[in-house]
Amino acid sequence: MKRKFRMGMVGGGLTSFIGPVHRKAAGIDGQIELVCGAFSIDPAESLETGKSLFLNPKRVYTTYSEMFEKEKNLPPDQRIDFVSVVTPNHVHYAPTKMALECGFHVMVEKPIAFSLAEANSLKKLVDKTGLILALAHTYTGYPMVKEARHLIRSGKIGKVRKVFVEYPQGWLSAPLEKEGNMQASWRTNPKQSGMGGAIGDIGTHAANLAEYITGANITEVCTMLNTVVTGRLLDDDNSMLVKFDNNATGVLLATQVAAGEENNLNIRIYGEKGGIEWRQEEPNTLVLKWLDKPKEILRAGWSYLSDDAKRYIRTPAGHPEGYLEAFANIYRSFTNALKDYKPGKKINAEKYDFPDVGHGVRGMTFVETVVKSAKSNKKWVKIKN
Amino acid sequence: MKRKFRMGMVGGGLTSFIGPVHRKAAGIDGQIELVCGAFSIDPAESLETGKSLFLNPKRVYTTYSEMFEKEKNLPPDQRIDFVSVVTPNHVHYAPTKMALECGFHVMVEKPIAFSLAEANSLKKLVDKTGLILALAHTYTGYPMVKEARHLIRSGKIGKVRKVFVEYPQGWLSAPLEKEGNMQASWRTNPKQSGMGGAIGDIGTHAANLAEYITGANITEVCTMLNTVVTGRLLDDDNSMLVKFDNNATGVLLATQVAAGEENNLNIRIYGEKGGIEWRQEEPNTLVLKWLDKPKEILRAGWSYLSDDAKRYIRTPAGHPEGYLEAFANIYRSFTNALKDYKPGKKINAEKYDFPDVGHGVRGMTFVETVVKSAKSNKKWVKIKN
Amino acid sequence: MKRKFRMGMVGGGLTSFIGPVHRKAAGIDGQIELVCGAFSIDPAESLETGKSLFLNPKRVYTTYSEMFEKEKNLPPDQRIDFVSVVTPNHVHYAPTKMALECGFHVMVEKPIAFSLAEANSLKKLVDKTGLILALAHTYTGYPMVKEARHLIRSGKIGKVRKVFVEYPQGWLSAPLEKEGNMQASWRTNPKQSGMGGAIGDIGTHAANLAEYITGANITEVCTMLNTVVTGRLLDDDNSMLVKFDNNATGVLLATQVAAGEENNLNIRIYGEKGGIEWRQEEPNTLVLKWLDKPKEILRAGWSYLSDDAKRYIRTPAGHPEGYLEAFANIYRSFTNALKDYKPGKKINAEKYDFPDVGHGVRGMTFVETVVKSAKSNKKWVKIKN
Amino acid sequence: MKRKFRMGMVGGGLTSFIGPVHRKAAGIDGQIELVCGAFSIDPAESLETGKSLFLNPKRVYTTYSEMFEKEKNLPPDQRIDFVSVVTPNHVHYAPTKMALECGFHVMVEKPIAFSLAEANSLKKLVDKTGLILALAHTYTGYPMVKEARHLIRSGKIGKVRKVFVEYPQGWLSAPLEKEGNMQASWRTNPKQSGMGGAIGDIGTHAANLAEYITGANITEVCTMLNTVVTGRLLDDDNSMLVKFDNNATGVLLATQVAAGEENNLNIRIYGEKGGIEWRQEEPNTLVLKWLDKPKEILRAGWSYLSDDAKRYIRTPAGHPEGYLEAFANIYRSFTNALKDYKPGKKINAEKYDFPDVGHGVRGMTFVETVVKSAKSNKKWVKIKN
Repeated sequence: MKRKFRMGMVGGGLTSFIGPVHRKAAGIDGQIELVCGAFSIDPAESLETGKSLFLNPKRVYTTYSEMFEKEKNLPPDQRIDFVSVVTPNHVHYAPTKMALECGFHVMVEKPIAFSLAEANSLKKLVDKTGLILALAHTYTGYPMVKEARHLIRSGKIGKVRKVFVEYPQGWLSAPLEKEGNMQASWRTNPKQSGMGGAIGDIGTHAANLAEYITGANITEVCTMLNTVVTGRLLDDDNSMLVKFDNNATGVLLATQVAAGEENNLNIRIYGEKGGIEWRQEEPNTLVLKWLDKPKEILRAGWSYLSDDAKRYIRTPAGHPEGYLEAFANIYRSFTNALKDYKPGKKINAEKYDFPDVGHGVRGMTFVETVVKSAKSNKKWVKIKN
Repeated sequence: MKRKFRMGMVGGGLTSFIGPVHRKAAGIDGQIELVCGAFSIDPAESLETGKSLFLNPKRVYTTYSEMFEKEKNLPPDQRIDFVSVVTPNHVHYAPTKMALECGFHVMVEKPIAFSLAEANSLKKLVDKTGLILALAHTYTGYPMVKEARHLIRSGKIGKVRKVFVEYPQGWLSAPLEKEGNMQASWRTNPKQSGMGGAIGDIGTHAANLAEYITGANITEVCTMLNTVVTGRLLDDDNSMLVKFDNNATGVLLATQVAAGEENNLNIRIYGEKGGIEWRQEEPNTLVLKWLDKPKEILRAGWSYLSDDAKRYIRTPAGHPEGYLEAFANIYRSFTNALKDYKPGKKINAEKYDFPDVGHGVRGMTFVETVVKSAKSNKKWVKIKN
Repeated sequence: MKRKFRMGMVGGGLTSFIGPVHRKAAGIDGQIELVCGAFSIDPAESLETGKSLFLNPKRVYTTYSEMFEKEKNLPPDQRIDFVSVVTPNHVHYAPTKMALECGFHVMVEKPIAFSLAEANSLKKLVDKTGLILALAHTYTGYPMVKEARHLIRSGKIGKVRKVFVEYPQGWLSAPLEKEGNMQASWRTNPKQSGMGGAIGDIGTHAANLAEYITGANITEVCTMLNTVVTGRLLDDDNSMLVKFDNNATGVLLATQVAAGEENNLNIRIYGEKGGIEWRQEEPNTLVLKWLDKPKEILRAGWSYLSDDAKRYIRTPAGHPEGYLEAFANIYRSFTNALKDYKPGKKINAEKYDFPDVGHGVRGMTFVETVVKSAKSNKKWVKIKN
Repeated sequence: MKRKFRMGMVGGGLTSFIGPVHRKAAGIDGQIELVCGAFSIDPAESLETGKSLFLNPKRVYTTYSEMFEKEKNLPPDQRIDFVSVVTPNHVHYAPTKMALECGFHVMVEKPIAFSLAEANSLKKLVDKTGLILALAHTYTGYPMVKEARHLIRSGKIGKVRKVFVEYPQGWLSAPLEKEGNMQASWRTNPKQSGMGGAIGDIGTHAANLAEYITGANITEVCTMLNTVVTGRLLDDDNSMLVKFDNNATGVLLATQVAAGEENNLNIRIYGEKGGIEWRQEEPNTLVLKWLDKPKEILRAGWSYLSDDAKRYIRTPAGHPEGYLEAFANIYRSFTNALKDYKPGKKINAEKYDFPDVGHGVRGMTFVETVVKSAKSNKKWVKIKN
C-alpha cells in the first residue's frame, strides 16, 4: 500500500466505551485513517463525534445505511476500505451484512451477531463475497498469548491435560442497570444482548482464549448459569465443567458479580511436563511451571521469545504494552490481510492470525449450547463443532 | 495444668512425612511432650525412631495395641494424655477406636477413617466416651484463615454469593507409584486410601476450608472425577460445581496432576460488597477486594486484626509463620480443650475451634457423595448434612 | 482546534528505537498528524522512512535545516505546528534551537541538550520566543504517578521523610557497544551522550520522577559513579545518597549492569503516616502502606482516584495501559498547551502538567553535579536549584 | 547423643519478644530441652515464667549468677549444656562471659555485646576456653539464603558486581519510646543499646546477610545516619554506599521509619551473568534473573536445590516454613557442633555453618565504623577486617 487504509465506523459515539478503544487501537501503528462514521442513532451526537475527530462533516452520516450508500459511490481514492462495527450486540448483524453487501471489509465487535442464525447468515455472505471479516476478540492479540500458543503447539509442556480459564469481573455486583448505567443497561437486556448475559459478554472471550491457546475445541459442557442480582434479566454468573477434543478437561468461569475484581481474565493450562499461566491484567508476563525445574517467568520484549510473539511487540522489555496494543494487534493482522486482498482470492484468517467469521459462528454456538446445558438436568451437553 | 501434656504416637516412623510434622508442631509451644510411640509395623524401625527421639526404650512399642494396653496401666503421673494417629488412611480407624476405648483423647490425621461407616462408628464412640477427638485439618489452623472466617461472619463483605476453592498439586503428574515412591504408593492404592484418591487426600481439605471460612455447608455437587495418569487406580483430578446452604454457589478443584504446582490450596469468596482471597503458599497475607475502594492487603501480626486471628499468631508482622505453626495451632486448640476436660463433661469443639469427629464424618460423606456424583449422568447430587 | 496538530520529526529513521515510540504515542489520541520529517542523516533512509509512513515525498527532507526552511514558508493551513526531536543526545540542541528560531513549538527527547550551557541557551530562547518546549520525561506521564503526586501533595502520608528511587537495567552488562549494538554504541560514547552515561540516560529520569512526585528538589548529592564493564568510556552504574529541600533524604540508584533487570524504574516514598510505592513495569498499580491499617492497592481506572490521575486514563479498570499511553499523555498535555497558545502569551507548563525547558536545565545541572561529586572526596556536593 | 541437649535461659520473661522465639525455635526439632532459667531481673516474673514453662521451681533462678553457680555444681546428667542469652543488648556481655567462664556453651542474641571492646574480650574468652558461642543472626538460617550463597559460590551468576541490601521497618515511625512501648524504649536508649540505634538493631543483620551470601567483606562505607523522629536519642534511619573486598560495590539501607513496612529485609545481588533476589517476608522463594533467558523462581522443597539448602528444609514444596524454622536452623547448626564438641578440640563454625564470636566482633566493628563515617565529611571510611 502506498497509503493508509480508510476506515468508517458504525457506532462509537461520544458516550461509547468501545468506540474510542477501536479508534485509538487503529491509530497506534499509523496504518489506518478514520475518514467517516455513523456514530449514533442520535444525529446530533453523531455529528458532534465526527467534529471531535476532525472529520469532514460531509462524511459524518446519520445512519449506517446512508453511510454505506454514499461511500460506495465515492471514487476509489476516497471511499473507505473497511468499516468497524462497534454498536451494542443487537446492532451487529444488520450493518455488518450491509457493509459486506456494499463491498466493504468489516471489523466487528464480538459477539458477531444476536443469534446463531444471524451468525450463520454472515458466514454465508463472507464465503460468497470473499470479503474479509475480523472479529474483535481482543485478548488473543496479546503477544504473550501468542507465546503461550506457540509453546503448546511446539509441545513444550507435553500433551495438554487440564485447562482452567476464568473471566471474573465485579462491576455488575449491584443492579447498575436500574441506576442509569448505560453499559450495564444494554448488557443485561435480552433485547439488546441476546440470550446470554455474562456468558455472551465475557464467557465467549474465555472460551475463545482457551481454544486459541490450546488449539483444541470444547466438545461438551456441564453448566451452572446464575442470575445472582435480583431482578436482573440475564445470567451474570457462570461456571462450567468442559471437555476438549484433545481429551483435556477443565473448568470455565465467567462472572460479573465477583465483587472487587476488575477484568481478571486468566488461564492456566497443565500438560504432562509443565504448566502455563497468563493473566490479562499483567499481560506482559507468562509463567511457565515445570515438573522438575524452577518456574520460569517469560516477559515481553526478550530475545528468547518465539517469532509468533515477537512480531506483535512494539517496545523493548520493561516498557509495558497493554490493552490498546493488543487491540492494535488485531487491527494489524486484519490490515495485513487487507494488503494481500484481491477480489476472488480467499484470505486464510488462520495464516494472518485474526479471529474471523468462523470464530463468530463458534461463539454463538457456544452461547446457545451453554444456555441449553444450564436448563438441562443432564450432566453433559455436546457442543457442535 | 502444672505439666506438659503427654503424647503417644501411632505411626510416624523415620520415613514418614506427616509423623515428624506432628512432632515438630506439637513441640513448638512447649505444652506437649512426646513420651511414647508405636511408630511402625516394622519393630526395628519403631525402635530406631524412638531412639532418635530420645524416648525411654520401654515406651517404644511394637504395636499400638501393646502401647494402649501398657500405657493405660501406667500410673496417672506417667501415662499419656492423648495419642496422635499419623498412619496411612486405612490404619486410622482401628487405633483411634482402641485409643478411645482405652480412655485416651486422640488427634487423628485426616481422613478420619477409611469409610463413612467407620467414621460414624467413631462418632458414636466419641459421643459415648465424652473423650476429645481432633482431626488434623491443618489448613484451618492458619491465622489468616481465622481472619477470613471472622470477616465473613461479621458481614464485612455482605452476603456470600460465590466460593471458588482450589487445591492444585503437581506431584502425581507422573506414575510415581510405579517408581517406588512410598507417599504416592499408598495414596493411589484403594486398599490403603479408600474410594477416593485426590478427592480424599486433598479434596476434603478444600471442602473443609470452604465450609470453615464461610460457615456454610455444601449441599449439592456436580462432579467430574478423572484418572489422568494411565494405569492409576484412583482419581487424581477433580472439578466440581457446588451449591451451599446459604444459597452461594461455586467451584471446587482438587487435582494432583497440575504439573509444576506445589501445594497451592487457595480460596476466593465474593459477597455483595467485596471479596476475600487467601493462598496457603503465602499464608500470612489475606486480600480484601471492594466494590468501590482500593484492595486491601491484610497481614499477620498487625494490630488491626481480629482476636480470632491474633490469638493464633506467635511473631510480629513481617516474621513469617508457616505450615508447622498452622499445625501447632490445631494442637493448641486441642490442648486448650484438654485443659478444660473433665470426665462426663462434653467439650464443644466449635468453642475451642478445632476440627472434630463431626468434621471427620462430614469429610467421609463428602468423598462418598462426590464419587457417587462422578458416576452419575444426573447433573446434581445432594450431599447429606 | 478544528483540525489535528501537524507534527514534523527530526530523527526517528527506520532503525531508531524512540522515533516509532513518538509516532505511535502521538497517534493514539487522534489529535496529531505527522506530515513531514528529516528522519536520518542518510537521505535514503529518510526517504524510505517517510514512504513507510505514507508521507508526501515532498515533505520528506534530507536535513532538518531544509525542513525548517521549507516548512516555515508553507501556507499556515499546511505547515507544521511543532517538531519532535528524537535524535541521539548530541543532536538535540541544534535542531531544537533552529526550530524555535523558525517559530515552531518543540517536543524534544531528554536530555534536552549535550551540556548545561546548551540547556541554558535553549531556556533563554524559549523565554524570548514564548514558544512551547516539552521534554519527553515519559515516566511522569503514567496516571498512577500523577496519583502518587496528588497523594503526597494532599498530605495523605504526612510530611515526606524518605525517598528511595531506583532505575536498574541490565542490558549493558556486557560490552554491547563493541558488538555493533547501535543503541549501546551512542549511549556509551561521550561524544554522542555527553559527560554522563547511565547517569544521563536513566539517572535523570529517576531524579525527575522523585522531584515530580514529591514536589521537592534534590539539594545535595553524595555519589559513587562506576564504570563496571571494562573498557567502557562512560559510567554504567551509579548510587548516591541525596538530600531534598523539604528535609527528606534518600537514595537514588541508576545502573545498567543489573543483569536480568529490564527497565525497572521504581520509587518508594515514606512519610510520617504512610508510604507510597510505584513500579514502572507494573504501572497501573500504586501501593499505599500505612502505619496502622492494611496496605492498599490503588489501581488505574477506579472511581476513587483523583482527577489528577483520571484525566490521563483511557480504559476501564483491568484494561492495562502502558508505556505508549504514558508517552501519549506527555503529548496530550503538550497539545493541551498548544490549543491555548497565543503569540505573546506565556504558557505555564506546571498548569498543563508537562516537563518543560526548566526541567531540561535541571536535568543537565543534575548530571554535571553528580559527575563532579563522583570525583570529589568530600561527602556532600550541593546541587544548584 | 542419647539425650536432648539441656538449655538454660537468661532473659526471656513473659513480656519478652525474643525469649519465646528462642524457646519455640529450640523446641521444633526435639533436640533441645529447656531445663532452667533466670528470666527476669524481677524475681516474681522469673518465677512466673518458669511456671508457665513447667520448669522445676528449683531451677528457676533469680539472677544469672545464681543460675551459673548452681548449675555448674549439678551432676553432669542434670546440668545444662548451654545457655541462651536473650536479654537487651547491654546485658549480653556479662552473662555470656560468666557462662563461658563456668564452662557452658552459649547462644547469644545479636549484637554480641555493647561495644567492640566487649566483643573482643568475648572472642578472647572463646578462643581460650574452646567453648562454642553462636550468635543469633537468624536470617542466615533461611534455606533459600543458603541456596543464594551456594549459587554465588558456585559461580552461577559470575563475578559479583553489585549488592543492594535493605532492611526497612516502619514500627519506629512514631516516638513509641515515649508511649511506654518497652521494645522501643530499650532499642532507642543508648544506655541499653549502645552507640547504634537502627544501625545496631537491624543494620548489622543487613551487613551480615550481604557478607554471608556473597562471601565477601565490606571494606569501606560512606554513611548517612539520621535521627528522623524528633527527640529520639539514637539513629533510626541509615543509608550507606559500600565497597566489598571482591571489588563489588553497593548500597545498604537500614531504617525503622519506613512507615508501613514490616520487617522487609531483602537483598539483590548482580553478577556478570545474572542476578539473585531474596526477601525475608516471602522467604521460601529465591528469584534468579538472567541476561539472556527467563527469570527463574526457585522454591524451597524442590529436588533441584543444592544440599546446602536442602539440609535445612523440613517440609515438602508448598508447605511454607518461616521465621521460627530459620531460627531453629541456627539452633540446629549449633547443636550439630555441640554433638561433635570435645574439650580441647576447636570447633570450626564455618563448617557447621553458624554465626560465631567472629561475626559478633565483626558486627561491632561495623557499627562503630558506620557511626564514625556518619560524623565524617570524608566520603569513604575504611572498615577494619
